[in-house]
Amino acid sequence: MSFMARADGRSPDQLRPVTITRGWLAHAEGSVLVEFGGTRVLCAASVQDSVPRWRRGSGQGWVTAEYAMLPRATNTRNDRESVRGRIGGRTHEISRLIGRSLRACVDYKVLGENSIVIDCDVLQADGGTRTAAITGAYVALADAVRWMRERKMCNGDPLVDSVAAVSVGVVGSTPLLDLCYTEDVAAETDMNVVMTGSGEFVEVQGTAEGKPFNRGALDELLDLGVAGCAELTRLQREALA
Amino acid sequence: MSFMARADGRSPDQLRPVTITRGWLAHAEGSVLVEFGGTRVLCAASVQDSVPRWRRGSGQGWVTAEYAMLPRATNTRNDRESVRGRIGGRTHEISRLIGRSLRACVDYKVLGENSIVIDCDVLQADGGTRTAAITGAYVALADAVRWMRERKMCNGDPLVDSVAAVSVGVVGSTPLLDLCYTEDVAAETDMNVVMTGSGEFVEVQGTAEGKPFNRGALDELLDLGVAGCAELTRLQREALA
Amino acid sequence: MSFMARADGRSPDQLRPVTITRGWLAHAEGSVLVEFGGTRVLCAASVQDSVPRWRRGSGQGWVTAEYAMLPRATNTRNDRESVRGRIGGRTHEISRLIGRSLRACVDYKVLGENSIVIDCDVLQADGGTRTAAITGAYVALADAVRWMRERKMCNGDPLVDSVAAVSVGVVGSTPLLDLCYTEDVAAETDMNVVMTGSGEFVEVQGTAEGKPFNRGALDELLDLGVAGCAELTRLQREALA
Amino acid sequence: MSFMARADGRSPDQLRPVTITRGWLAHAEGSVLVEFGGTRVLCAASVQDSVPRWRRGSGQGWVTAEYAMLPRATNTRNDRESVRGRIGGRTHEISRLIGRSLRACVDYKVLGENSIVIDCDVLQADGGTRTAAITGAYVALADAVRWMRERKMCNGDPLVDSVAAVSVGVVGSTPLLDLCYTEDVAAETDMNVVMTGSGEFVEVQGTAEGKPFNRGALDELLDLGVAGCAELTRLQREALA
Amino acid sequence: MSFMARADGRSPDQLRPVTITRGWLAHAEGSVLVEFGGTRVLCAASVQDSVPRWRRGSGQGWVTAEYAMLPRATNTRNDRESVRGRIGGRTHEISRLIGRSLRACVDYKVLGENSIVIDCDVLQADGGTRTAAITGAYVALADAVRWMRERKMCNGDPLVDSVAAVSVGVVGSTPLLDLCYTEDVAAETDMNVVMTGSGEFVEVQGTAEGKPFNRGALDELLDLGVAGCAELTRLQREALA
Amino acid sequence: MSFMARADGRSPDQLRPVTITRGWLAHAEGSVLVEFGGTRVLCAASVQDSVPRWRRGSGQGWVTAEYAMLPRATNTRNDRESVRGRIGGRTHEISRLIGRSLRACVDYKVLGENSIVIDCDVLQADGGTRTAAITGAYVALADAVRWMRERKMCNGDPLVDSVAAVSVGVVGSTPLLDLCYTEDVAAETDMNVVMTGSGEFVEVQGTAEGKPFNRGALDELLDLGVAGCAELTRLQREALA
Repeated sequence: MSFMARADGRSPDQLRPVTITRGWLAHAEGSVLVEFGGTRVLCAASVQDSVPRWRRGSGQGWVTAEYAMLPRATNTRNDRESVRGRIGGRTHEISRLIGRSLRACVDYKVLGENSIVIDCDVLQADGGTRTAAITGAYVALADAVRWMRERKMCNGDPLVDSVAAVSVGVVGSTPLLDLCYTEDVAAETDMNVVMTGSGEFVEVQGTAEGKPFNRGALDELLDLGVAGCAELTRLQREALA
Repeated sequence: MSFMARADGRSPDQLRPVTITRGWLAHAEGSVLVEFGGTRVLCAASVQDSVPRWRRGSGQGWVTAEYAMLPRATNTRNDRESVRGRIGGRTHEISRLIGRSLRACVDYKVLGENSIVIDCDVLQADGGTRTAAITGAYVALADAVRWMRERKMCNGDPLVDSVAAVSVGVVGSTPLLDLCYTEDVAAETDMNVVMTGSGEFVEVQGTAEGKPFNRGALDELLDLGVAGCAELTRLQREALA
Repeated sequence: MSFMARADGRSPDQLRPVTITRGWLAHAEGSVLVEFGGTRVLCAASVQDSVPRWRRGSGQGWVTAEYAMLPRATNTRNDRESVRGRIGGRTHEISRLIGRSLRACVDYKVLGENSIVIDCDVLQADGGTRTAAITGAYVALADAVRWMRERKMCNGDPLVDSVAAVSVGVVGSTPLLDLCYTEDVAAETDMNVVMTGSGEFVEVQGTAEGKPFNRGALDELLDLGVAGCAELTRLQREALA
Repeated sequence: MSFMARADGRSPDQLRPVTITRGWLAHAEGSVLVEFGGTRVLCAASVQDSVPRWRRGSGQGWVTAEYAMLPRATNTRNDRESVRGRIGGRTHEISRLIGRSLRACVDYKVLGENSIVIDCDVLQADGGTRTAAITGAYVALADAVRWMRERKMCNGDPLVDSVAAVSVGVVGSTPLLDLCYTEDVAAETDMNVVMTGSGEFVEVQGTAEGKPFNRGALDELLDLGVAGCAELTRLQREALA
Repeated sequence: MSFMARADGRSPDQLRPVTITRGWLAHAEGSVLVEFGGTRVLCAASVQDSVPRWRRGSGQGWVTAEYAMLPRATNTRNDRESVRGRIGGRTHEISRLIGRSLRACVDYKVLGENSIVIDCDVLQADGGTRTAAITGAYVALADAVRWMRERKMCNGDPLVDSVAAVSVGVVGSTPLLDLCYTEDVAAETDMNVVMTGSGEFVEVQGTAEGKPFNRGALDELLDLGVAGCAELTRLQREALA
Repeated sequence: MSFMARADGRSPDQLRPVTITRGWLAHAEGSVLVEFGGTRVLCAASVQDSVPRWRRGSGQGWVTAEYAMLPRATNTRNDRESVRGRIGGRTHEISRLIGRSLRACVDYKVLGENSIVIDCDVLQADGGTRTAAITGAYVALADAVRWMRERKMCNGDPLVDSVAAVSVGVVGSTPLLDLCYTEDVAAETDMNVVMTGSGEFVEVQGTAEGKPFNRGALDELLDLGVAGCAELTRLQREALA
C-alpha cells in the first residue's frame, strides 16, 4: 500500500476504540463519558422546565450545548478561560456546532417548553474532541429525554433521529478516518462530518490546512465520514440498548 | 420551471450585482468597499512590520482578520460588542473563517516577518456578509501587498493564488446561489464555499437548518458554489486590473 | 498676512468642504454620511417604541448616542474596543457629549415614550470627528423624527431647534476654524462649540494643550465657533429641504 | 436683590468653606483631604521612578490622575465599578479632566523620567467633586514634588504654575459660584472652570442642562469662575506656606 | 522576658490604640471611621427596603458587606480593581468574611424584608484591616438598625448580639495580639478570630505562614484572641453608649 | 447513643470511602482522581521550567493551584465562570487555600526555578470538595516531583512533608468527621482542617453557620480533624507506595 502506516496501526478507514459509558455522573439527568481512543469527553445533560426568554409562550423547547476543555487535557497546560475572563473563539465555535448538531434531531413541539443543556467537558484531548463530544452528547441527550418521559414532561418522543460525528482528513495524500492529535496536526485537509442515524448530513465542515483540496479529495473524505458515522450510530444504539 | 421566483428576479444560479470599490479609505494600505446586492462590507488591510510573539525569529509573516458589524447594519439595532464587553460566538467564528481563508493564498516566507490585518466591517447586511467579506478582503490584501512590494518589504509576490467565497443554499427544495437575507432565513440548508482562483476548495461549511440533507443536495450546492466562486474570481481580477 | 497658510489653503475662518448624504443606509429610520473634509462619519438613527427602565411610565422619551471608530479610520490601526473588552475613556466622553448635545433640541413629552439611539461610527478620521458626528447626527435624528411623524408615533414635532458643532483652536498663535488632524495635533488651545440653530450655546469645551489661554483668545475662538456653527446650520437646513 | 437666597445663606459669588488638610495619609508622598463644604475628596500623590512605555527614553516625566467615588459618598448607594467590572463614562471623563488640568502646570523635562499618579477618591459628595479634586490634587502634587526635590529626583522645580478649579452655574436665572448638589441639580447651565495661579484658563467646560445659554450668560459665568479660582489659588498658597 | 520588644512598645497581649468615630459620613444610615493604630477603615451602612431576588417573599432580610482598599492605602500604590476590570481573590475573600461575621448577630425575621450593605473601605492600611473592618462595621450596622427602628422599619431589635474581630499571630516564637503590618509580614502563624459580644466564636481562621503550628500554639493564639475580642466588645459598647 | 444516625451509616468519626487513583491523565506530569464518597475531584499537576515574574532570579520555585467545578458537578446546573466572564469569590477563596496548603510542604530552594500548577476540577460534588482537592493534589504534586527528579530538574526532594485535609462540623449538636453535602447544609458549625503528615496544622478555618460555637466545640472538632487527617495521610502514603 502507498500510505504510511498509522501510529496506532489502524487502517485508513478504521475508527479508534470507542467507549460510551452511560450514567457517569450521579446528579445529571443524562451523562456519558465518551472515549475515542485517548480523547475523553464528559457529557452531562441538564433538564430545565423553562426556556430562554425569546422562546417563552411558544409551546416549544430548546436544546443547547457548552464545550470546554480542562487546562491539562492537552500536552501542555492552557490557561482557564474563566481566569482570562473571556471565552476563546475556538470554544465558542465548537459549542455552537454541538448545539446545532443536536438540535437537528429534536422536535421542539414534542419537547414542550423545556430546555436541555448539554455540557461537554474534555477531560483528555487526543484529536477529534468535537466529534467525540457530539457523539457522546447525543447519548446523554437520549438519557435525559428518557428521564423526562418517565416523568411525563413531554408528549411522546422529541428525538426524531440520532446524531453522530467523526473527523476525516488527508494526511500525506491519504484520506484517513478519525484523526488522532498527531495526524490532525499533520493533515493537509481536515473535515468534520455530522450525520443523522438515517444517513443524512447535518453539518459538513472541510478546511484546507496548508493546501487547498479538489472535488475528488472532498468526495473521498465524505465517503470515509459517511462510513464512520454509520459505525458510530451502531455503537450509540448498542450503548442505549 | 418548478422553483419559486426569487424576490429580486434572479435565476437560481445568478449572483447579485457585485461591486468592488478599491481605495475607499485614505489611510489603509489596502481598502475595498465590497457590495453583494444590499450587503456592504468595508475591508481595510493594515500592514505592520512585525509579527505576533509566537512567530518572531521565524522569518515568516502572518495574516489575520477581524469581522464586525455596525449596530444598525441590520433591520433592527444590535448592541455593540464593545458595550457588552465581549465578542459574540458568531463574530469570533466569522473572523476566524476569513483569516483562515486568506491565509490559504499566502506564502509566509515571501511575506517576511510582516503582518497584515484585514478589518471587515459590515456597514449594511443583507445576507452573505462573510462571503462578501472574504471576497473583498482578498482584494484589499492584494492592494496591501502591492504597497509592500513598492516599498521592497517582501522578496517577490507572497500571494500564490486568489480567494473568493459565496453562499449557497436550498430554499423550498431549490438550490440557490448567493442568498439574500430573506432567502437565508428560509433556507433548509445553508453552505459557504471558499475557493482559490485556480478552482480548489479552501473551506466548505454546510449546515442543515431545520432538516438534514443528502449527498445529492450537497453535490448540487457544491456545483453552484464552484460556478459562483469562478465568477467572483473574474470580478476580482477585473477590479485589480 | 501674519498667520501661516493652512495646508489645504483655507482661510482661518473657513470650514472644510462639508457633505451631508441622507439615506445612506437601507434599514435605519434615519441615516447620514457626513463628511468634514477627510473626516467621514456614518450616523444611523434607530427608533424604538420603548424607553429605558428609569423612564418608564413618565410619558416622556429619550435620545442617546454611541460613538465609535473603525480600527483603520486613523493613520495607524487601533485595536477594537470589543476585542480589548472595554470602552476607552475618549469613546465614553464623546458618546456622552453627542447625546447631551442632541437632547438639547428635543421635547421629550412630544416624543412620547419612544427612544432614538444615534450610532455615530467614524469610517475615516481627519480631525473634528466629534463635531462632524454631532452635525450629522442631528440630520439623522430629524429624518428619524419624520419617519415617526409619518407613523403618528408622536404628537407634533419633538424637535424644538437644530444642533450643529464645530472645532476651533489656536495654532501658531492664529485662531482657526474646523481643524484638520495635523492642525489639531499642533494646536495650543482646542475648543469644541456646540450651538443650536437659533444661535445659543449647548456646550463649550475649551482645553489648553501645552499652554494656558487668556480671555482674549477664548473670545476670539468663540467668535469663530459661532460663525462656523451658523454656516453648518445653513448646510443642515439645505440638506433637509 | 432679585435672586433666591442660597440654601446655606451664601451670596452668589461666595465659595463654600474650603479646607485643605495636608499629610492626611502616612504612606503617600503627597496627600490632601480637601473639603468644599460637604464635598470631601482624599487626594493621594504617588511617585514612581519610571514612566509609561511610550514615554521611555524621552528624558521626560508624566503626571496622571484617577478619580473614583466610594459607594456611599452619595445620598443613595452606588454599585462599585470594580464589582460591575467596568469604569463608567463619567469616571473616565473626570479622571481625564483632572490629569489634563494638572499637566498644564508641569515641566516634564525638569520632572525627569518619573511619574506621579494622583488618586482622587470622593469620600463624601455634595456637588463640585471634580473641581474640589483638581484643587486638592494640585496641593498633593506640590507636596510630592517637594518630597522628590528633597531626594534630588528632579533638577529644579517641575511646577511652572499652580492649578485650581471651581464650578459655576445658572440657577433660576442667577449665576452662582461653587454649586452644592441641590443647586447643581437645579442648574440650567453648568460650567467648570480650571485656571492657573497666574490667571489663565486651562479648561472651560460649559454645558446647557435643559436650556441653551447665550454669550452674555457665558461671560457672567466666566467672571464668577475667574474670581473663584483666584480665591482658591490664595487658599492653596496659604495651605502650602 | 524572652520575646523581642514590639516596634511600638506594646506588650504581646495589648491592642493598638483603637478609635471608633461614629457618624463620619453625612448620607449613610450608619457610618464609622474605625482606627486600629495606623489602620483606618471607613465603614458605611446603607439600608434598602428590598432584598435580593432569591430572598423575596420570605419575610426575611439580608446583610452583606463589601471590602476594598484605596490605591494608596498601602506603602506602594496598587492598581484599582475597577481599572483592572476584576476583583481580586483577597478582596472577595475578605468581603465574604465580613458579611458572614455580621450575619452571625442578625435575626433576619425581625429585620423584615430589608437589606443592609456595609461598605468597608480601607483608607490607610497597617495590618489587621479585615478585623478592624468587622469591628467598625458592627458599630455602623448598629447605627443603621437604630435609624430603621426610629422609622419603624423592623419589629424589635434584629441584633441578637455584637461582633468584633482581632488578628493574632506568632512572631519570632512569641504569640502576639493585633499585629501591625511589619509584624504580620514576619509572622510564622497568622490567625483571625471573630467573636460575639457574649464570648462565642463566629470564625477562626489560622494559617501557617512558612511553618506549620502545633495544638499548643493554636491554643495560645485563641487565648489572646478571646481576650482581644472582649476588649474590643467593651470599646464598641462605649462608642455606642 | 444520643446522635442521629448518619445517612450512610457511618459513625461520627468515620471517613467516607476514599479512593486515590494515580495517573488518571496521559499528559500531566502528575494526576490523581480522588474520591471522598460521592465527591470526585480530578487533580492535574503541570510542571513548568519557569517561575512568575516576581520570582525570577531568586533561584526559588513556586507552587500554585486552581480550583473549579464542572457545571453539572452539583445537583442543579451552575453557569460556567468562563461564560459569566469572572471567577466567583468562593472559587478564588478555595484556589488560594489549596495553593497555600500545598506550599506548606515545599522547599522552594530545592525545587529550583520551576513552577508546579495543580488544577483541581470537581467532576462531581457531594460535600468536602476543597478538602478532597487538597488531599488529592498533594499526591499529584508528589508524582510531578518524582517526574522532575527523574529528569534531574531539582537537587534533592523539595517535599519536606505531606499535606492532607478534612472537613468537620457540628450537626444536630454532634461533631462529625468528613461531612457529605446534606450534612454540610445542616451543619451549625463547619470547619476545614489542613495538616501535615507529621501532625501539625497548616490551616484551620472554622465558621459558625447559624449559631456561634464555644471553645469546647472547637476542641472537639479539632480532635476529629486531627484523627481524620492522620488517616488520610496513611491513605496517601499507601497510594504513593
